[in-house]
Amino acid sequence: MESFADAKYIFDTIWLLISGCLVMWMAAGFAMLEAGLVRSKNTTAILTKNIALYALACLAYYVIGYDLMYGEGNSFLGMGAFISSASDGDHSGLSDFFFQVVFVATAASIVSGTVAERVKFWPFMVFTLVLTAFIYPIQGHWTWGGSALGGLIDGFSDFAGSTIVHSVGGWAALAGALLLGARKDKYTADGKVNPIPGANLPLATLGTFILWFGWFGFNGGSQLALGSKDDANAISAVIANTNLAACGGAIMAMILTQILYKKVDLTMVLNGALAGLVAITAGPDYPSMGLAAVIGAIGGILVVFAIPFFDKLKIDDPVGALSVHLVNGIWGTLAVGIFNPDVSLFAQVKGIVVVGIFVFAVSLVVWGVLKAIVGIRVSEELEYEGVDAFEFGLHAYPEFTGGFHSGTKPISGSSSGSKEMTGQLNPEMAK
Amino acid sequence: MESFADAKYIFDTIWLLISGCLVMWMAAGFAMLEAGLVRSKNTTAILTKNIALYALACLAYYVIGYDLMYGEGNSFLGMGAFISSASDGDHSGLSDFFFQVVFVATAASIVSGTVAERVKFWPFMVFTLVLTAFIYPIQGHWTWGGSALGGLIDGFSDFAGSTIVHSVGGWAALAGALLLGARKDKYTADGKVNPIPGANLPLATLGTFILWFGWFGFNGGSQLALGSKDDANAISAVIANTNLAACGGAIMAMILTQILYKKVDLTMVLNGALAGLVAITAGPDYPSMGLAAVIGAIGGILVVFAIPFFDKLKIDDPVGALSVHLVNGIWGTLAVGIFNPDVSLFAQVKGIVVVGIFVFAVSLVVWGVLKAIVGIRVSEELEYEGVDAFEFGLHAYPEFTGGFHSGTKPISGSSSGSKEMTGQLNPEMAK
Amino acid sequence: MESFADAKYIFDTIWLLISGCLVMWMAAGFAMLEAGLVRSKNTTAILTKNIALYALACLAYYVIGYDLMYGEGNSFLGMGAFISSASDGDHSGLSDFFFQVVFVATAASIVSGTVAERVKFWPFMVFTLVLTAFIYPIQGHWTWGGSALGGLIDGFSDFAGSTIVHSVGGWAALAGALLLGARKDKYTADGKVNPIPGANLPLATLGTFILWFGWFGFNGGSQLALGSKDDANAISAVIANTNLAACGGAIMAMILTQILYKKVDLTMVLNGALAGLVAITAGPDYPSMGLAAVIGAIGGILVVFAIPFFDKLKIDDPVGALSVHLVNGIWGTLAVGIFNPDVSLFAQVKGIVVVGIFVFAVSLVVWGVLKAIVGIRVSEELEYEGVDAFEFGLHAYPEFTGGFHSGTKPISGSSSGSKEMTGQLNPEMAK
Repeated sequence: MESFADAKYIFDTIWLLISGCLVMWMAAGFAMLEAGLVRSKNTTAILTKNIALYALACLAYYVIGYDLMYGEGNSFLGMGAFISSASDGDHSGLSDFFFQVVFVATAASIVSGTVAERVKFWPFMVFTLVLTAFIYPIQGHWTWGGSALGGLIDGFSDFAGSTIVHSVGGWAALAGALLLGARKDKYTADGKVNPIPGANLPLATLGTFILWFGWFGFNGGSQLALGSKDDANAISAVIANTNLAACGGAIMAMILTQILYKKVDLTMVLNGALAGLVAITAGPDYPSMGLAAVIGAIGGILVVFAIPFFDKLKIDDPVGALSVHLVNGIWGTLAVGIFNPDVSLFAQVKGIVVVGIFVFAVSLVVWGVLKAIVGIRVSEELEYEGVDAFEFGLHAYPEFTGGFHSGTKPISGSSSGSKEMTGQLNPEMAK
Repeated sequence: MESFADAKYIFDTIWLLISGCLVMWMAAGFAMLEAGLVRSKNTTAILTKNIALYALACLAYYVIGYDLMYGEGNSFLGMGAFISSASDGDHSGLSDFFFQVVFVATAASIVSGTVAERVKFWPFMVFTLVLTAFIYPIQGHWTWGGSALGGLIDGFSDFAGSTIVHSVGGWAALAGALLLGARKDKYTADGKVNPIPGANLPLATLGTFILWFGWFGFNGGSQLALGSKDDANAISAVIANTNLAACGGAIMAMILTQILYKKVDLTMVLNGALAGLVAITAGPDYPSMGLAAVIGAIGGILVVFAIPFFDKLKIDDPVGALSVHLVNGIWGTLAVGIFNPDVSLFAQVKGIVVVGIFVFAVSLVVWGVLKAIVGIRVSEELEYEGVDAFEFGLHAYPEFTGGFHSGTKPISGSSSGSKEMTGQLNPEMAK
Repeated sequence: MESFADAKYIFDTIWLLISGCLVMWMAAGFAMLEAGLVRSKNTTAILTKNIALYALACLAYYVIGYDLMYGEGNSFLGMGAFISSASDGDHSGLSDFFFQVVFVATAASIVSGTVAERVKFWPFMVFTLVLTAFIYPIQGHWTWGGSALGGLIDGFSDFAGSTIVHSVGGWAALAGALLLGARKDKYTADGKVNPIPGANLPLATLGTFILWFGWFGFNGGSQLALGSKDDANAISAVIANTNLAACGGAIMAMILTQILYKKVDLTMVLNGALAGLVAITAGPDYPSMGLAAVIGAIGGILVVFAIPFFDKLKIDDPVGALSVHLVNGIWGTLAVGIFNPDVSLFAQVKGIVVVGIFVFAVSLVVWGVLKAIVGIRVSEELEYEGVDAFEFGLHAYPEFTGGFHSGTKPISGSSSGSKEMTGQLNPEMAK
């Protein structure tokens, strides 16, 4: 280090790396949150999806997505050279790649929760591939990667991705939920909603805390620089505001469920905190802490009403991801237009709509093609038995639920059902 | 960045932020530790309390506490201006606020463990509000926020809060435990102690590891600066010592339970590690690593004797928080007076006593007023059934314990018991 | 801070500290991974071992190991002076100690998984003591601590410890597994392998994510410096490559288990990710991200074949640690010789062989002596009942498995069996 420019380079680079590590850790948060909120018979499936989607998202974004998003003219597959040349700036190009690649995994993680307990594994993975290699990077290019679309959404402001990451995941998930349909036992014939409790609430709480913790990197790192007093001050504001927005969301969900249902609902408090986090993400840099808490608190209100609203529409979302990430991704983006005098509300609306239409439409096509060709939903029998037993061959908690879940019967005509279920490894491995 | 002063500003600020993130993460540690050590029928309750108290503590400290603690003349509610002016120093004012606000949540987290399995939710939240808005900041002002009390405790030294954070949480918890009384089945009529095993020891172990990890920020960040070689050296000593003190506590608890009980007791090893962490917190900067390990090891001894001691007094503490945070908060503070030649043992004793009397007395009044007005303890029936089912409407592990816990009977006259228990969301939400 | 040299000192020191914190956090990852993959009746045991071994490893390395590894002439117990003098370099000596001490705990953590469900606690702890005080530091001295062995392995290159940490843990574990023998019910008389499913796959998944996250510190910190643009660029490459190698390993295990067994196997995907991490650890600094992904992917392939291979040899390894850490520690070290033009493949082979022979032989002796003198394996009865109940007196999940596990019968002649099992604390404590 021989100059202040060198010191700035180091600060900027290491901040991207530390923040990126925290965002990677959010993948664990999604995995635990979703695993806690599904039933035990589908827990192995959601765990497998969450780790596999993270890995696939990183590889797909490396091979295709990053270059699409940040390359000039979206030159396919020229990334190797591109990343190197990115090194000539204020920070290491690879630190930038690392910080960006963990974001795309976040978007993909949102989808897995909404389509849980009924989606087939491999079609889900194919959708993840398309989302992370193409859909996410293309819309990301419009705002973060350059301008785009003939300047259609110029002026659109999204600091860390309420729209670009969270609502993108939400739109993709909504398309999937619509084409998949609800879980069989979720909505009864006479119009009632049958609540399906999650199997492991400590896990869901842990997941929420992980996400909250990781969000400091998600939002804090999005300053993209640390090497000046202004950057340090901005990151301080971003982290303090992110924290208070989550607090506002959690407290409001706590109060509101007490008022509406006479009971504080833990899953709503968790989703309230997450709603606050999503809501502040589009603009954690400009507000006072008080305003940040209010923006988060409104997020908490929205999530408490959105979850039963989606149920009224019979859109089944086992973990509430649409209410958290889509509804509050929109709200957070609008809030910047409302409260930040430097940003036009109209530009925010345009950004939300343009990104929403693109992602939802393309996702609908991709899910639709998958549905037509290979099917995206597991069989009724598998859904009844739980996908863990027969699609994955491993119970998540073999000793706590008696190996087979209550209500489980062997697949008709399969005498090997129980044998297939005995192993931590598939029985073929034992040969 | 144009000067070394700028670089120092950035170092100091980012270190407060990174450390603050680690301390926030400790909230997850307390949640997992306590959720692992209570019974499954009260797990949703402890999870809800832990996330809600963190959120409330942050908001209360933002609105009132921070200004009380660090403002001049304790001017109420003038904090907005205060935080901004704090920015003119060596680091961003908001980074300082963030680091301080996560500390107050730690103090509050300690209370929830001791009063677990029998305290009513809302009175607990009111107590948390008073603790974090008033009690903690007022006593914190005496040492960290300025001088106080006519110089009564001048010379008192508490690096990261063995007294100011941990024993404060402990005294507040002790007052609550005394007014609440023990869990019904904890002490039998003939004077025996009935051990009540925690439902999920991997969770408790995870919580301990999270706290250990987060403590590097708790103690390391309390250096409050990084931007000089001396600061970097001091932080290195703090972190290395913090780690070895925890090791000393864990190993001593391991050895001691083997000797005393012929079996190594996992929960004691966990509490031994935590005891070592609390004990080193008052002075992780001055000792050699060997001395740090000894201070921690004595903490491990204390916790092994303190837990049955509190049981002998029939003070019921489901997670051992008094033994860890109160007893070792005192021990750690005394240790500085004993081993650090620059600190007077008498000043340490005065600090411990003054803070202890204030916090215990005020806490007793607050818990007492709550007890008189609304009651602080759940009904016998709720305690028997578990608070999750009827106060929160959600089982933490609905599939592992058969939905209803062994020994659970429907509340008399309530035919809707089982209906109320079916949902992840409250049944009203499903309408 | 008054010079760029000061700034460099601060950068280098804080990076070692932050990285060291992440590596400490890996101890939680091993604990959760192993607790998730054993049966519930042996879960308290593995948790106790994992926290105790971490604590013991730190103390043993402090008192003896660090000085053996990095001191001149391996002067025993002179470390106090040594660490201080180490401060005169580019970073704080205590930050270096902290970073090194968490590495030795990693090596020890590997062993506990392989010998799980049958090893006696205290002999295991004695082995850990010898491993961390002597075996690890002596071989570590040969490469990282100086040159050694008359230059025998000069030229050997191991960036962050594929050989020096991971295969060392693996060789020590292999020696233990051979002398312990397999779990009684693992291999049937007619040569079949009886898969023994892990009790808690969300825990195992969480552990894998923790390890992945912590590995950014393990490999990133091994650059040992941050205070120059070159260091910042190198760390960026290390972290980006580490991430993609894990992705490659996970995806390859996913694909391969689908092909071989017609089902994606979650535990294989987890081990695939870990295999990728171990494989890249010897050289995360030199390859392109594409090559890093390939090295990790080959790790994923190796683990899928190694696990049944060890079973064919009747070497019982409940968590697959040999396949992950030993096989891929070797592979990753070889890969540097193959792909890095600056490193000789022959030197790599020599390093692997020399370290392997030394660690395996000494471990075999230590395990052998322990076996001869006190025995290293629990009784048949304890193995059948689960070690938690009678060696540790605490069930890990007392409410989920009915207190006693299926198939459990009281120890013959012991009428106190159930009494001994009722407490969170040992019953003696209640007196």
